[in-house]
Amino acid sequence: MPRYKLTIEYEGTRYSGWQRQKNARTIQGELVKAAQTVFDGEFELYGSGRTDSGVHALGQTAHLDVRTMLAPNIICMKLNDELPADIAVRYAEKVSPRFHARHDAKARSYLYQISRRRTALGKRYVWWIKDRLNIDAMRQAANEFVGLHDFRSFTADDPDEKSTKVSVESCRVESAGDLILIRTVGSHFLWNMVRRMIGSLAEVGRGTLDVEDIRFFLKKKSDVPARLTAPPSGLFLEKVYYDSDVHSGEICPVINI
Amino acid sequence: MPRYKLTIEYEGTRYSGWQRQKNARTIQGELVKAAQTVFDGEFELYGSGRTDSGVHALGQTAHLDVRTMLAPNIICMKLNDELPADIAVRYAEKVSPRFHARHDAKARSYLYQISRRRTALGKRYVWWIKDRLNIDAMRQAANEFVGLHDFRSFTADDPDEKSTKVSVESCRVESAGDLILIRTVGSHFLWNMVRRMIGSLAEVGRGTLDVEDIRFFLKKKSDVPARLTAPPSGLFLEKVYYDSDVHSGEICPVINI
Repeated sequence: MPRYKLTIEYEGTRYSGWQRQKNARTIQGELVKAAQTVFDGEFELYGSGRTDSGVHALGQTAHLDVRTMLAPNIICMKLNDELPADIAVRYAEKVSPRFHARHDAKARSYLYQISRRRTALGKRYVWWIKDRLNIDAMRQAANEFVGLHDFRSFTADDPDEKSTKVSVESCRVESAGDLILIRTVGSHFLWNMVRRMIGSLAEVGRGTLDVEDIRFFLKKKSDVPARLTAPPSGLFLEKVYYDSDVHSGEICPVINI
Repeated sequence: MPRYKLTIEYEGTRYSGWQRQKNARTIQGELVKAAQTVFDGEFELYGSGRTDSGVHALGQTAHLDVRTMLAPNIICMKLNDELPADIAVRYAEKVSPRFHARHDAKARSYLYQISRRRTALGKRYVWWIKDRLNIDAMRQAANEFVGLHDFRSFTADDPDEKSTKVSVESCRVESAGDLILIRTVGSHFLWNMVRRMIGSLAEVGRGTLDVEDIRFFLKKKSDVPARLTAPPSGLFLEKVYYDSDVHSGEICPVINI
């Protein structure tokens, strides 16, 4: 069957994550429902990976197998016509039937937004932290994540995951007005992993943890990062990389506060 | 009584505008409720002007008369503790008892966001227009608004308003990615005026109206702009000016899409 690559944007607030579930509203579930209406026949939809409940995406990807006469931009339009307002298909492109949204993904980048003030307009897109945060200390700690490490302290037990070793390419911390932006790029990320990295970095910023603690969590299994899991509201799956693109560029906030 | 100037940010989506009403949820109503809890006594709150139902604000202002021992930053914090999440007091400052939030305001600036694409994250903050818009034509038409004009074609009958003559200082149209940003600065704005200006500019962008039509609406009373009133979701009261500040600076989008 012909294969299409979809790039999808969503506000995760109302959803129990990406993965289709029987008794919960999910992003994949809504996409499948929309595709059923548009194509009225056989199709298959496969995502690049899961996002947790409440997590947003600027550029989630999936591949869609469907026999259709519709041009890709029309597929995009027709799916959007059926989707709820907080999910949008940004692009649809015809790809090789050998392309695989998950297996071919070389890297993912995530953006996290911490707000240093109460924001009436951005609440759904930030984690508001009242305490003063030491950004230099957070930056230093973020560097500890870079490289190939065993992230078992930073993930919940996941029967689908064979290994807890992950190669993190970068983890940058930047100040942008009242926001602190953290972007991390890696081969893949484990269940809850980014939110536990962020939660630990926030404690480093507060001064209750230090760089040594982060090093320790990466060497020995610890329960601490689990207790510090950052809320999903601040987290965005920014991009899924399939080629040798440079994984950098300016870190851009989603909302200007 | 001592007087404090408040700078207030809000998402207008859930509210019937600024002005306190008996049977509707309003921004002023929520602020008064919060102040009642914090001050538990006599106080008076006076806004710089109304915003319509559904319209947002980045920098609405009001003055608050209250006898209190609290420092301005504590007033700010305590009000925020009582306010709903979509209203935030950004700053509180002690001002002269002669300062008046409305009468002393020299100018107001409004920002309007049109989105050229379906946005899953910014829907509450934009007007999504599917048609192709000619920005150059919009820019030319926007220039027509500048100066002292009779805006009666652009306002609903308002018994509180004595004159429909308004001095518009600037009306700029800029392209920012998938957004079109329009900022207008003026001495004051009449009921529905900004949204009717924007609605008319959108028609110029679509090509169904031209610059000559805008000139005509400013010379003779016409019902057309009323029918073209733009939705409140894209509109933000950006700033209220009290001194001889330069009313310019970069136009910054609220959401980056």
